[in-house]
Amino acid sequence: MNVNVFKETFQRYLTMVEQTLAQLPWGKDTLNESMYYSLIGGGKRIRPVLALASAEAVGGQPQDILLAAVSLELIHTYSLIHDDLPSMDNDDYRRGRLSNHKVFGEAQAILAGDGLLTYAFELLAEPGHFLPERQLRVIKEVAVAAGKAGMVGGQVADLAGEGKTLSLEEIEEIHKGKTGAMLTVSARLGGILAGGTEEQVGALTEYARALGLAFQIKDDILDVVGDSETIGKPVGSDLKKGKSTYPALLGLEGAERQLHVETLKAQSALEPFGKSAAFLNDLATFIEQRQH
Amino acid sequence: MNVNVFKETFQRYLTMVEQTLAQLPWGKDTLNESMYYSLIGGGKRIRPVLALASAEAVGGQPQDILLAAVSLELIHTYSLIHDDLPSMDNDDYRRGRLSNHKVFGEAQAILAGDGLLTYAFELLAEPGHFLPERQLRVIKEVAVAAGKAGMVGGQVADLAGEGKTLSLEEIEEIHKGKTGAMLTVSARLGGILAGGTEEQVGALTEYARALGLAFQIKDDILDVVGDSETIGKPVGSDLKKGKSTYPALLGLEGAERQLHVETLKAQSALEPFGKSAAFLNDLATFIEQRQH
Repeated sequence: MNVNVFKETFQRYLTMVEQTLAQLPWGKDTLNESMYYSLIGGGKRIRPVLALASAEAVGGQPQDILLAAVSLELIHTYSLIHDDLPSMDNDDYRRGRLSNHKVFGEAQAILAGDGLLTYAFELLAEPGHFLPERQLRVIKEVAVAAGKAGMVGGQVADLAGEGKTLSLEEIEEIHKGKTGAMLTVSARLGGILAGGTEEQVGALTEYARALGLAFQIKDDILDVVGDSETIGKPVGSDLKKGKSTYPALLGLEGAERQLHVETLKAQSALEPFGKSAAFLNDLATFIEQRQH
Repeated sequence: MNVNVFKETFQRYLTMVEQTLAQLPWGKDTLNESMYYSLIGGGKRIRPVLALASAEAVGGQPQDILLAAVSLELIHTYSLIHDDLPSMDNDDYRRGRLSNHKVFGEAQAILAGDGLLTYAFELLAEPGHFLPERQLRVIKEVAVAAGKAGMVGGQVADLAGEGKTLSLEEIEEIHKGKTGAMLTVSARLGGILAGGTEEQVGALTEYARALGLAFQIKDDILDVVGDSETIGKPVGSDLKKGKSTYPALLGLEGAERQLHVETLKAQSALEPFGKSAAFLNDLATFIEQRQH
């Protein structure tokens, strides 16, 4: 892994994502302000970055899929706003800043989330440089990944599992819905819109599934051993809420081992791409080693 | 107006809508149950009916656009679930039944709404009998109508206007967003997917805008003079919440007069269609005269 090349590429993608988000036509009213507040609250932008890198891995131009890529961040942000609500996880802070409902109130936070989710589909349907059939396929896949069989379903299962001891299989099911489905569809979106073959899209899917699990295991580990300043939320909050985690089930060492297995699995799925997937390969290493 | 023909056609559309909604692949878990609970809670199904009738007005087959038409009802239902939440309108009843959060709890109700909104876009992107370009156009239009420049924006403005005395222009702006945009896009969706000309889609737009205003004026009137058993919610609830309404601004007679003006405006927009728009014409009369 050439750390400098990786960081430069990451920064290039990040700049594209941040610029695109900032240049969307935001109004000056409370609704736009509340949507923008959470959207611009930092975060790793893993989903759009994954989409851009996947487009590049199959030989496409990342800038052609920018609106679709940032739509993934809108959906992710809406889910965080709703998850933080008092009736859900009741989190006052997100990424080290006050959560949306602490700033704008509960009603406005619900509507900010609704607005972001809806705006995401507007961006996905924006006329672009793609075959309309591909664009429709992507919209359907994103809706499935974000919906009852994916992210929303995972959140319901997560809430239902609080305070219970879950098996490894059960927590993998929750994570597949809650974070895995959207990460997977992010890679697929990039591959499909940029005209990747079915084999390439399949390889990206395999990569992103393993990466998603690795991401979640690392999240759980950081919640135990991380630094609250660095991760932007109190350490031990999963434990406090009675959430089942990988470290709780496998021990810290077992979780680290599983993290490494998933990282290698992700990287081996990239073999058919060769050099064009160098960034995705490094991204897996980066996620394994991240400190926040 | 031939009342029997109108009722038969309405019933034909309604049966198609109810069957389509019931036959969607609903799971047995809490999330699916909570989504289904509110979706099957009755209601007039005005949005899908408007879409089906608009498809027929331009010479299309209503059954070809069924999934797209019911997606409008999913979006409408999600908006009702979120509007009823304690932090929003705090309504315990909806259409004479307990509101979603009274049955499933607040967290689940938020997620049921999120799930319905997301599922709507899945249905809109389902491969169908349409040109993909038309389908993409419809998805974008629905997202705009449901989003920050439409329904969600209208709900924010509505909450902000509570307890204030608004001008007629201000309440028209709120209604355009809150209910008008989705009613208008319902008619456009039917016209566009079924291959109507731009002139036809324009005429349907003009019709639906006036119909939407008439619908809202009638809603306000029923909130003053309606029977709470028939309308399924307590009479006078707008007044209690300090909402500005047409009767409050124009008096009851003035509101009735405005209702009639909008009804006639809607009907005159249909002139180019001739007989194929007979149902839409009668629908405007029906909305003017409805008692719930």
